[in-house]
Amino acid sequence: MHFADKLVRRISALDNPTALGLDPLPEHLPDFIVKKALKEHGLSFQAMAEAILRFNCGIIDAVADLVPAVKLRFAFYQAYGAEGLRAYQETLRYARGKGLLVIADAKLSECGSAARAYAQGHLGQVEIFGERLPGFCADAMTVLPYLGSEGILPFAQVCQDEGAGIFVVVRTANASADEIQSQPLGDHLMDEHVAMLVEGWGRDLIGESGFSSVGAVVGVAYPEEARRLRHLMPNQIFLATGYRSQGSSAKKVRACFYENGTGAVVSVCKPVLLAYQQSGQPAEAYADAAREAALRIKGELARMF
Amino acid sequence: MHFADKLVRRISALDNPTALGLDPLPEHLPDFIVKKALKEHGLSFQAMAEAILRFNCGIIDAVADLVPAVKLRFAFYQAYGAEGLRAYQETLRYARGKGLLVIADAKLSECGSAARAYAQGHLGQVEIFGERLPGFCADAMTVLPYLGSEGILPFAQVCQDEGAGIFVVVRTANASADEIQSQPLGDHLMDEHVAMLVEGWGRDLIGESGFSSVGAVVGVAYPEEARRLRHLMPNQIFLATGYRSQGSSAKKVRACFYENGTGAVVSVCKPVLLAYQQSGQPAEAYADAAREAALRIKGELARMF
Repeated sequence: MHFADKLVRRISALDNPTALGLDPLPEHLPDFIVKKALKEHGLSFQAMAEAILRFNCGIIDAVADLVPAVKLRFAFYQAYGAEGLRAYQETLRYARGKGLLVIADAKLSECGSAARAYAQGHLGQVEIFGERLPGFCADAMTVLPYLGSEGILPFAQVCQDEGAGIFVVVRTANASADEIQSQPLGDHLMDEHVAMLVEGWGRDLIGESGFSSVGAVVGVAYPEEARRLRHLMPNQIFLATGYRSQGSSAKKVRACFYENGTGAVVSVCKPVLLAYQQSGQPAEAYADAAREAALRIKGELARMF
Repeated sequence: MHFADKLVRRISALDNPTALGLDPLPEHLPDFIVKKALKEHGLSFQAMAEAILRFNCGIIDAVADLVPAVKLRFAFYQAYGAEGLRAYQETLRYARGKGLLVIADAKLSECGSAARAYAQGHLGQVEIFGERLPGFCADAMTVLPYLGSEGILPFAQVCQDEGAGIFVVVRTANASADEIQSQPLGDHLMDEHVAMLVEGWGRDLIGESGFSSVGAVVGVAYPEEARRLRHLMPNQIFLATGYRSQGSSAKKVRACFYENGTGAVVSVCKPVLLAYQQSGQPAEAYADAAREAALRIKGELARMF
């Protein structure tokens, strides 16, 4: 099925546009999980992978009926090599098994056959000696636009073949994004130029929902920019990043949405994963604390409309 | 030791600025290697990983005394998941064991702690429960500039800590690069703007050779552009891509170098890996054919000066 349609439907069914970020920083992991993993595997990438997987599964169990999607920041898994990828793969499978959509936040960029390799590996079937074996099978992934069409269309083709999606990084939430993304090209900025390209790249992948499976990553720090970009990308689902960090509030993230509450999915990570630390609850209650936090954020986002 | 100094020294010692691309496309792999791997492991990612590794080791043995560096296109390994990363890791170790420098062509982009995770995983020591374990330990990697300084400086920091390097993608060889990289910002183009940023990012990492461990990826298709970019990045080693493809010749790649023959390393893949096919030699002779091709390319590049 069409990725954007699936995402829109699931957001609507749960009345919640949250994509929960599963960014397993070591400092997110509760002590009791770390100790168990170290006891079983010693100080090793395997222990790290095991701790991450256990932590993630607890979070997923706690929120699977609440949030439509999880966003896995690939860097935090790939850093641990083959073991990290195993934790990634298992997390992805577990989340999909619970009905969650999975967005691979890998921020990759390639063109030609290498782009196809990245796309197949993350989203679909991987060609191997004339046969096809399943790759990670994420529902969607993030990609960078710097190489132009040849860096995006191979991903879009795999999206078409597999019912998957991509979010092209258009405007990031970090402060130094300006150094490139806000550079003026005549009467518009670089991020607006990229937005127009993204609109074109996504035109053949628009589903029944009116949204394209080629979406856009848009940081929520600057609502005026989000509005400009929304105007240029009417059919793009925005993967809104930086919510609840970099000084952004529910008021700011509002600009990523249409009036009717559609058009965006909001990435939230630390306020949920670290809820047990922030609320002073014992580490053993991390999953319950995450659920409470996810419910609170759902409420915040609902009150925008 | 300082990455750029190491690379400059090795290029000079071998009198050869080639970085051999190890891009293990399935169609590069000789039948006898594929059959053996399939017999041992059945149709699986493990078979693919095994075939890639065997092929790579044969090539490395054949050229290790000839070329200063290999460039591993990460997408072609990562596509095969954990098994692919194992082939990647083993290839990297084998190449380094033979004295080759290894450039991870991963074209990644992240900022903050995720950038640190990518950088540590590829170039250095990975933090894990307060300790450090070795990651892939490539000598250098490629990164994308779209997120600005915050997307580069965490990589540069790891380079400083580990004696490693990065090549920032400034100007790619593919045709659609123009859509973003040639966009005009007042009196200069986007790639020139990025070049000026790269020059700044690399200023603290200049070694005794006069070159910085923050280098630049520059496609060789348009010599005028390479000359403009060379002017803006006097201390950057250019990782010149697209040589012997996209209609580019030794004459064109000349523009990436200084008059004295320093300043660039030239990525070459298919003419070496596929030499046995192109010269009609039996598959069993693929490594010898690769050596002959690598010698021929060394000669071509030497005749530029």
